[in-house]
Amino acid sequence: MASEKTRLGIVGVGTVGTGVIQLLEDDPRFEICRIAVKDATRSREVDLSRFEVTTDALSVATDPRIDILVEVAGGINPALEVVRQAISCGKHIVTANKEMIAKHGPELFALAAERQVTILFEAAVGGGIPLISTLQRGLLANRISRVAGIVNGTTNYILTRMEREHLGFGQALTEAQAAGYAEADPTDDVEGRDVAYKIAILSSLAFQSSVEVEEIYRQGITRITDLDIRLSAEFGYRIKMIGLAQPGDDTRLDVRVHPTLIPLGHPLAGVDGVNNAIFIKGSAVGEIMLFGPGAGRLPTASAVVGDIINLASAIRLPDFASYFQPTIAPHAARILPIDETENGYYIRFQTMDVPGVIGSLGTAFGNHGVSLHSVTQKGVAADGSATIILLTHRVRERQVQAALEEIRQQATTREIGVVLRVLI
Amino acid sequence: MASEKTRLGIVGVGTVGTGVIQLLEDDPRFEICRIAVKDATRSREVDLSRFEVTTDALSVATDPRIDILVEVAGGINPALEVVRQAISCGKHIVTANKEMIAKHGPELFALAAERQVTILFEAAVGGGIPLISTLQRGLLANRISRVAGIVNGTTNYILTRMEREHLGFGQALTEAQAAGYAEADPTDDVEGRDVAYKIAILSSLAFQSSVEVEEIYRQGITRITDLDIRLSAEFGYRIKMIGLAQPGDDTRLDVRVHPTLIPLGHPLAGVDGVNNAIFIKGSAVGEIMLFGPGAGRLPTASAVVGDIINLASAIRLPDFASYFQPTIAPHAARILPIDETENGYYIRFQTMDVPGVIGSLGTAFGNHGVSLHSVTQKGVAADGSATIILLTHRVRERQVQAALEEIRQQATTREIGVVLRVLI
Repeated sequence: MASEKTRLGIVGVGTVGTGVIQLLEDDPRFEICRIAVKDATRSREVDLSRFEVTTDALSVATDPRIDILVEVAGGINPALEVVRQAISCGKHIVTANKEMIAKHGPELFALAAERQVTILFEAAVGGGIPLISTLQRGLLANRISRVAGIVNGTTNYILTRMEREHLGFGQALTEAQAAGYAEADPTDDVEGRDVAYKIAILSSLAFQSSVEVEEIYRQGITRITDLDIRLSAEFGYRIKMIGLAQPGDDTRLDVRVHPTLIPLGHPLAGVDGVNNAIFIKGSAVGEIMLFGPGAGRLPTASAVVGDIINLASAIRLPDFASYFQPTIAPHAARILPIDETENGYYIRFQTMDVPGVIGSLGTAFGNHGVSLHSVTQKGVAADGSATIILLTHRVRERQVQAALEEIRQQATTREIGVVLRVLI
Repeated sequence: MASEKTRLGIVGVGTVGTGVIQLLEDDPRFEICRIAVKDATRSREVDLSRFEVTTDALSVATDPRIDILVEVAGGINPALEVVRQAISCGKHIVTANKEMIAKHGPELFALAAERQVTILFEAAVGGGIPLISTLQRGLLANRISRVAGIVNGTTNYILTRMEREHLGFGQALTEAQAAGYAEADPTDDVEGRDVAYKIAILSSLAFQSSVEVEEIYRQGITRITDLDIRLSAEFGYRIKMIGLAQPGDDTRLDVRVHPTLIPLGHPLAGVDGVNNAIFIKGSAVGEIMLFGPGAGRLPTASAVVGDIINLASAIRLPDFASYFQPTIAPHAARILPIDETENGYYIRFQTMDVPGVIGSLGTAFGNHGVSLHSVTQKGVAADGSATIILLTHRVRERQVQAALEEIRQQATTREIGVVLRVLI
């Protein structure tokens, strides 16, 4: 049994797939039977000439030799159909596909349970950081009360560079693109879609209930200025792009993605550059944090290959699949709407520089029961406008929005520049 | 099968045992059949009247009803014999016992493999932080090149208080004792014995080879002053009590325990108070760190109960035990002697305040090929002695010791106050 090789099929030879092949190609425990690529003519950093290569990904799913299908193509099409077919053919799955697991996880887990095969997806969130296994098995003795993660290296790199070098968002983005940390079209990263997939997955494991990705509130980082970062620091915070999941009320989960002011003493505040970190609060364990590189060829391949080795060592034990199946309820949980969430708020306004401006802002917030923690005015611009920054105490978002609506009507208001939430 | 309860025997109702019973007592999946205590008359924070209580721990090991023996007594006697007996009777083991696993792990793992039962010990290091499972299964795709841990909350608390409040070691220790973070006899913590057990365990998992605890070099924190902490900060370091394990040379492991100057940008530098953190460097994953409360009733019980739940879900699958067995070589690895290790060094001297002192120190180091990074003199005491602090570049310890021997002979030397290693 120990001498028999586990036979693999690999779908996708991009960044992660290349790393997986590099880690596995000389491993005597494995045989790579078949590899599917999108473009067979492309030159690659890994030599595929030793392998059976196809552009027909479905042929890997149905290949009767293969024990484990390794899906590292990403995206929905054709990955979803390939994985469905492979499960139907009785193959185990190892995948790094956050979008597929976030959107179609419940369907795939149900199919896998039916066919008694296993789906492992440690690489889908946080690169090589062992997050998934921690939530699935390490914290079984806990009720989880919060999962908060810096799970997108691109936005963390941009925010870190803005802070350290006093850059604007656009400059920092250009630099991140030049350094290979941001894509030519950075939308999925800077607008929070990538984080939404990941927090949907973490939430489903922490609370045993899936959520609809499209229902997750998202706010991007594009409107943040280096002034916001500097002032947040003066108030004792760092701005981080956070995916948050926590119990909302009796029936709903509070799951959302937005830049967040993190208190400087919080473990997440110190996570810089392209690193990722996930903070978890559990009823017994207290507060723990897992930290490391969240992306990149080898860190992500480390998680994929770790899953493959674990699965291979277990695959021949009868009934083993049941041990690895996540216990996620088949119906999606309802999400608490963003205006019902509670937060502190950091708000930057442009106003006319006339007497009484701060008074009328304060009155508007008071009218809606929003209590202010601090008010700062920063200089006056050449056009006679003043920048005013407010920090509120904890309050329900709906009240802040109502106050902002009133302020928008005030004649002295030029612009509501940015509204950021504070982690409390 | 799902409706059948897993039957537990618990040995030890101290801090951790109390937490385990609290987490399990209303869990319908488990039945606590028998509990062994040292003193049946002692009043406890948990009500044992519902349970079968004995002072004969061996009777738990041999009780035919019990599936899993939970050993949370700590120490060697009687824990080791109880665990041996329980394994011989075919019971699975969950333990929090760092000393037993560090000293007798290989024997117990071999016995367990023979009897096809499983030993889980996530709670032995780092409380509820999922370290053991990460090293055992999460990083299987990696060659590990370093494990460095802050794994003793007592010493980290003392060093943090010394830094923040400018306290001497004695004052900080007294305060830690008053706060319940240090024991009346703090020797095992402040002299590094507790860390030695833990790094022995982590090393055995990272490098698949056990080490003899007694051979691990240990240096305590008792001679560190708040001046050392302040000057280290000026040089760009924080002093942390570290358990370190890394490949030494071709045949030996470099495993040791000592206070260490950690560069301020390193993730371990920011770990304060009673928290623990383990930094791991792997060939594929890069640098990751796991952080959280490393001790305490519920965090540690969280790990014990997590192991119990994992084991219970797997226990009835045939051959399952083999999946969980650590692959540790039966023979202990040889340890690189401390004088063959390479480090930077922080050295504090008391010397006479006479011309040429710094020159003769520098000459002594030069004679032994030790290159200096910086030299600082801090004031002159009423007795006419001066405090001089040196920081060296990376060098083999033997050369530093030879230079110090020469300096000890110099007429101007009053005392070599402290020699600390710098992480490089």
